[in-house]
Amino acid sequence: MKKVVLAYSGGLDTSFCVKYLGEEKGMEVHSVLVDTGGFTDAEVADIEKKAYELGVKSHYTARVADKYYKECIKYLVFGNILKNNTYPLSVSAERIFQAIAVAEYAKSIGANAIAHGSTGAGNDQVRFDMAFRIIVPEAEIITPIRDLKLSREEEIEFLKAKGVVREWHKSTYSINQGLWGTSVGGKETLNSWDNLPESAWPTQLTKKKPTEITLEFVKGELKAVNNRRFKNPVEAIRRVHELASPYAIGRDTHVGDTIIGIKGRVGFEAAAPLIIIKSHHLLEKHVLTKWQQYWKQNLAEWYGMLLHEGQFNEPVLRDIEAYFDNSQSNVSGVVRVQLAPYNFQILGIKSDYDLMSPVFGSYGEMNNAWSGDDVRGFSKIASNQVMIHQKIQELAEKK
Amino acid sequence: MKKVVLAYSGGLDTSFCVKYLGEEKGMEVHSVLVDTGGFTDAEVADIEKKAYELGVKSHYTARVADKYYKECIKYLVFGNILKNNTYPLSVSAERIFQAIAVAEYAKSIGANAIAHGSTGAGNDQVRFDMAFRIIVPEAEIITPIRDLKLSREEEIEFLKAKGVVREWHKSTYSINQGLWGTSVGGKETLNSWDNLPESAWPTQLTKKKPTEITLEFVKGELKAVNNRRFKNPVEAIRRVHELASPYAIGRDTHVGDTIIGIKGRVGFEAAAPLIIIKSHHLLEKHVLTKWQQYWKQNLAEWYGMLLHEGQFNEPVLRDIEAYFDNSQSNVSGVVRVQLAPYNFQILGIKSDYDLMSPVFGSYGEMNNAWSGDDVRGFSKIASNQVMIHQKIQELAEKK
Amino acid sequence: MKKVVLAYSGGLDTSFCVKYLGEEKGMEVHSVLVDTGGFTDAEVADIEKKAYELGVKSHYTARVADKYYKECIKYLVFGNILKNNTYPLSVSAERIFQAIAVAEYAKSIGANAIAHGSTGAGNDQVRFDMAFRIIVPEAEIITPIRDLKLSREEEIEFLKAKGVVREWHKSTYSINQGLWGTSVGGKETLNSWDNLPESAWPTQLTKKKPTEITLEFVKGELKAVNNRRFKNPVEAIRRVHELASPYAIGRDTHVGDTIIGIKGRVGFEAAAPLIIIKSHHLLEKHVLTKWQQYWKQNLAEWYGMLLHEGQFNEPVLRDIEAYFDNSQSNVSGVVRVQLAPYNFQILGIKSDYDLMSPVFGSYGEMNNAWSGDDVRGFSKIASNQVMIHQKIQELAEKK
Amino acid sequence: MKKVVLAYSGGLDTSFCVKYLGEEKGMEVHSVLVDTGGFTDAEVADIEKKAYELGVKSHYTARVADKYYKECIKYLVFGNILKNNTYPLSVSAERIFQAIAVAEYAKSIGANAIAHGSTGAGNDQVRFDMAFRIIVPEAEIITPIRDLKLSREEEIEFLKAKGVVREWHKSTYSINQGLWGTSVGGKETLNSWDNLPESAWPTQLTKKKPTEITLEFVKGELKAVNNRRFKNPVEAIRRVHELASPYAIGRDTHVGDTIIGIKGRVGFEAAAPLIIIKSHHLLEKHVLTKWQQYWKQNLAEWYGMLLHEGQFNEPVLRDIEAYFDNSQSNVSGVVRVQLAPYNFQILGIKSDYDLMSPVFGSYGEMNNAWSGDDVRGFSKIASNQVMIHQKIQELAEKK
Repeated sequence: MKKVVLAYSGGLDTSFCVKYLGEEKGMEVHSVLVDTGGFTDAEVADIEKKAYELGVKSHYTARVADKYYKECIKYLVFGNILKNNTYPLSVSAERIFQAIAVAEYAKSIGANAIAHGSTGAGNDQVRFDMAFRIIVPEAEIITPIRDLKLSREEEIEFLKAKGVVREWHKSTYSINQGLWGTSVGGKETLNSWDNLPESAWPTQLTKKKPTEITLEFVKGELKAVNNRRFKNPVEAIRRVHELASPYAIGRDTHVGDTIIGIKGRVGFEAAAPLIIIKSHHLLEKHVLTKWQQYWKQNLAEWYGMLLHEGQFNEPVLRDIEAYFDNSQSNVSGVVRVQLAPYNFQILGIKSDYDLMSPVFGSYGEMNNAWSGDDVRGFSKIASNQVMIHQKIQELAEKK
Repeated sequence: MKKVVLAYSGGLDTSFCVKYLGEEKGMEVHSVLVDTGGFTDAEVADIEKKAYELGVKSHYTARVADKYYKECIKYLVFGNILKNNTYPLSVSAERIFQAIAVAEYAKSIGANAIAHGSTGAGNDQVRFDMAFRIIVPEAEIITPIRDLKLSREEEIEFLKAKGVVREWHKSTYSINQGLWGTSVGGKETLNSWDNLPESAWPTQLTKKKPTEITLEFVKGELKAVNNRRFKNPVEAIRRVHELASPYAIGRDTHVGDTIIGIKGRVGFEAAAPLIIIKSHHLLEKHVLTKWQQYWKQNLAEWYGMLLHEGQFNEPVLRDIEAYFDNSQSNVSGVVRVQLAPYNFQILGIKSDYDLMSPVFGSYGEMNNAWSGDDVRGFSKIASNQVMIHQKIQELAEKK
Repeated sequence: MKKVVLAYSGGLDTSFCVKYLGEEKGMEVHSVLVDTGGFTDAEVADIEKKAYELGVKSHYTARVADKYYKECIKYLVFGNILKNNTYPLSVSAERIFQAIAVAEYAKSIGANAIAHGSTGAGNDQVRFDMAFRIIVPEAEIITPIRDLKLSREEEIEFLKAKGVVREWHKSTYSINQGLWGTSVGGKETLNSWDNLPESAWPTQLTKKKPTEITLEFVKGELKAVNNRRFKNPVEAIRRVHELASPYAIGRDTHVGDTIIGIKGRVGFEAAAPLIIIKSHHLLEKHVLTKWQQYWKQNLAEWYGMLLHEGQFNEPVLRDIEAYFDNSQSNVSGVVRVQLAPYNFQILGIKSDYDLMSPVFGSYGEMNNAWSGDDVRGFSKIASNQVMIHQKIQELAEKK
Repeated sequence: MKKVVLAYSGGLDTSFCVKYLGEEKGMEVHSVLVDTGGFTDAEVADIEKKAYELGVKSHYTARVADKYYKECIKYLVFGNILKNNTYPLSVSAERIFQAIAVAEYAKSIGANAIAHGSTGAGNDQVRFDMAFRIIVPEAEIITPIRDLKLSREEEIEFLKAKGVVREWHKSTYSINQGLWGTSVGGKETLNSWDNLPESAWPTQLTKKKPTEITLEFVKGELKAVNNRRFKNPVEAIRRVHELASPYAIGRDTHVGDTIIGIKGRVGFEAAAPLIIIKSHHLLEKHVLTKWQQYWKQNLAEWYGMLLHEGQFNEPVLRDIEAYFDNSQSNVSGVVRVQLAPYNFQILGIKSDYDLMSPVFGSYGEMNNAWSGDDVRGFSKIASNQVMIHQKIQELAEKK
């Protein structure tokens, strides 16, 4: 009997998959729920119960929030990564860690097949396919939803015929909530002109008076919020979320290139990721040299792109992580942030490693470490090549 | 008698230079005022009058707003250029065009010397030095303010002794207003922690009710605002400024690496530049391919950096401009923008060249141009190298 | 009746395709031979004759050598493009121009289908697939050889059964000869350790006495060889080939990443491409600024990569071409090259645009355009940031 | 009394400096000789003796060959670094390690001043200036040769007057020999057209029969040559030099941009560096993924550039080193090299980490890990964006 591991979320599509694989295809179904930090214990227990009700042979919950932070979110912060200068990769990163956890579980139990419930229309199918193929290349990849192209109604009908009658919730907006942000898709995001209405956003404005908070980073990692230290950065992220979300901060619309080559558009709210990244970035502007910042940014662009496109296992990402780790040795300090309705502002920083130290003179003020003559010499030598170029050009044109 | 061309603004420092060069050094002083779009005719006439009063041999006003747009601002928009992801290079770009205009004038009248009034503490001295050195390498560069390191009081005293008694305005904040934004420096920007107070910002909030405007771009250039077409993009920029500035939009603090190697920090308000760049950028996300965007961004980073550092004459910028020009052929369309207090939001776009065309299926919806099997094959081949890498790694470690 | 356009070379695989598509599939076969500069008129006539003998409805020869030069080879020279620092993309570039010519012909005659004879094992199938899909997306792509996986013997048998009896030449080494180089594959290139034996190389050493030649470039294009001017650069390339090939110059083995993710290895001989590129590159080292060279190289890396991977129609390549065109304005001059057995050396250059002009002082000799003090100032300012970094680091560590 | 540390080589210029600083300037002179691997014990002793004869207060020999390898050459190999695709940075790297050793010594003995004997014409002055300024910013930098601009004859005269009469050797070619290659400058390298004559090269051809050698790398470092293992990679480098130099391999001319903005040209012979780098590079082509190679190359370009320009202390180089270290985990294997007169060829490699493993099918041969249909799907999806672009373009143009 074929042993199939199924990425299971408790929703309609993956519930269909359990029944379909087990009863139509005669496979032994092992469901896996991956919790990247978004589920409560009660939710986890409920999903497990439902899986067994559908007839799975075994159910496993992979709780990977810490791993997700350590192996991914941490580097998204180190790299100040915002896809297309906008999107903190909220869903992309999470989906990949789910796919990897499922694939590793399949490998560990020696499954012959591995299944996901993604449709054939988006990025997620590729993320699952690739993680499965890379980690358990021997296992057959089965994708009932993509292959059968059934409508919601047909799936519900099929389940009903198998004796599964439930309330399958269908919301106007498709919402994906995670530790690193929430995505919101709907009819407005399917075209280029419209924008999500106020009511579509899961988090509504409930606080209007601006307030100021502080974030403390140690070697690039968020360690304290408003002077309260957190052992686990995941808790610190959640604390920023709590403080900022009443202001309805961090909403935007991401327009980008999907893995399959078409353009995609999605709304998202990501108060904590945006505040943390922008704070971290400002701190870096103070403590890193010009070229350190330049190269980090170039590498980060790729880290984000490859992650987004399901290439998390590309060894180049490990090389970039080594670079990022080394680059953070001085990224320690406190950042001031102002929260206001729909908006936040990074006000300033304090760090022992601040290169804007007044010890060597302030910008725009005279200083003692060099003279006007030094700058004159600098300007002269620094313009040598272009000066020569200009002159040679003039001489050549006269010939 | 030595013929010196002086970059003249009518302020204390350059007024001192006129007298100093003319009377102490015995030179024939030719003053030049460069108008990059910030002066009214009355201001220009007043500055000219004052120059002659100080005793210049000749005074020339170079009106370069159009040139400045065509040779620089246009490319800052094409490149979506924000230095350190923040600053539209408001002052940097303007100063360089001033320096170039002065140098070209010096060359045209065959001056032996060329002077600027910058101190030895900032970026501007280097920008002047370099433009002068590159364009008129034969001319001696004279920098009285940098060399003499006089205090304001000493300069005023010197002028008084020469019979020049004026009100020399000294404001709490040093403000530099131009077509592409206004910079604001003060005691808060001299350290890393403080932020400019509300009162320091030249433009105050005077309008609270959000409003929506549209910007139309044709091949990357802003051609219409709220359906009103402008022959001259400089006028279109001014129109966006008028509409947005009552909302006190576009304030931020830039922290960056100065040309002389220290960190610098400056406040700025730049409503029009930020709205235009962000609108243009969103339009590009819809009409350019992934790799077109990627390379534009890499080149733009350097365009901004070299411009900022006084290397506008580097021939590589001409190569990049050729690239930019070509890249804009499809960047035409209308962009919706919402203006609100302290904030704006780019809502959506409409373009004949929009690659998010529903003709080929929408993201997240099924389509007819390819099948689930095609994506399955894609995922398989796209993961080949990493799959092989993983396998070889495991095999090698077993040896 | 389905109208299929077939990329036809006259070899066994594509001859099989004619019969298979025409008689087994009942299609109307229109064969196309694409000549990128490697065929004589006699060969073209012979291939046409054979096509009709096999029963094609029509046969067309697309002679695209000039187009291939103008739209591709020219830019490979401008970019000094050597894949993996080694391979002038001899086959890659040619195959893509063949695929494009076939697709454009199919579009022009309104074909419903389009076929190629590549196997499922290499890069060429992807190049054909992609060009076909991009240029004639409506046409069905048919690939009999890839799909049927027949052996040579089975193909010969099939043709014999259809009454086609010919000598199907099978050589020990698979050789692909073109205007921009010749590739050589064989059992040695299928592993990582062996190297092609002397006898496998199509061009053998026949001249031993070293000789010196000159190449003249005008705006980046090769216009004269040994002072003989060529109207058509294709002729100039051929002339370099004639002069250099007796020395068995330009042999090497390319190891690279195929489009399908596995590593590939192939021998090649490319005397003319290597001599032209290396000469052009040296000329550029003299006439371009440091940053011009830097950015050209970065863009060229991608031009080569995307071309290699069948992405010639990516609009970013058009943007890069605009960059390249602009960058060549000063790349004019004469280059001295020494030819010797198995080896060549670029000796020197002469150009009106040479930035090594002694007018401004030679390297290592004193000069008058700047002083030791200028350099002292330059060094001081240029080390500011790192000096400050070092100091701040020491201070921070003491805390 | 001012305590000055002088970078001392025993040659005319630095001998002049000892006397000049000691007797004309009344300073306490502490000479330092830095041995980066080029001196024998006898030479070191002789130079020390001469220093004391000139009257130095103390003399110190810093023997830094191992440090130079571990902190620099190792990374030049990891990065396959050839400046302008040609030059292994033979002199640049060495000079910087000399400057750093002198500066660190000055810091350790608390010197008030630090001196070097470079002229004002080249790169070395900047390298010394910058290392001194960064490591001992408090110390005054003294540069008698640059400042006084004396001729050789004047220096000899000065020393004679001080009682120092020696044979000051003056060769036709200026030769700088080091562990990582030898540079050769002469009248031919001062212009762009000529090339060094055979007689100018320090190493002459003495062996004609080609031979084959093997190099073994472990995690990117050269550990064995012809199966003989070396504990110290410095010895392995020397062994390659011994084997290769009789073939007069590795001669070339480097044309590049100097730190001071002019073009510079220099001959060099560097058999061992070139053979080692090219061998290492081929090994990497087999064991690294496409993107690992891509990013290594981009970072290496900068590592070489910043090193060359005296920016070895830039912290970004430490970040890049962390990247390089991580990237080498699989760069282990044996490389075959053929040596022949004036030429070498890298023949092949063997490695447990070779991604060209035949386990997954060879390039150009069919395989079982994927099908023709998979590639068809891949090509389809991979051409989606450009296909859509082309279509949209056509539609837009029709409007």
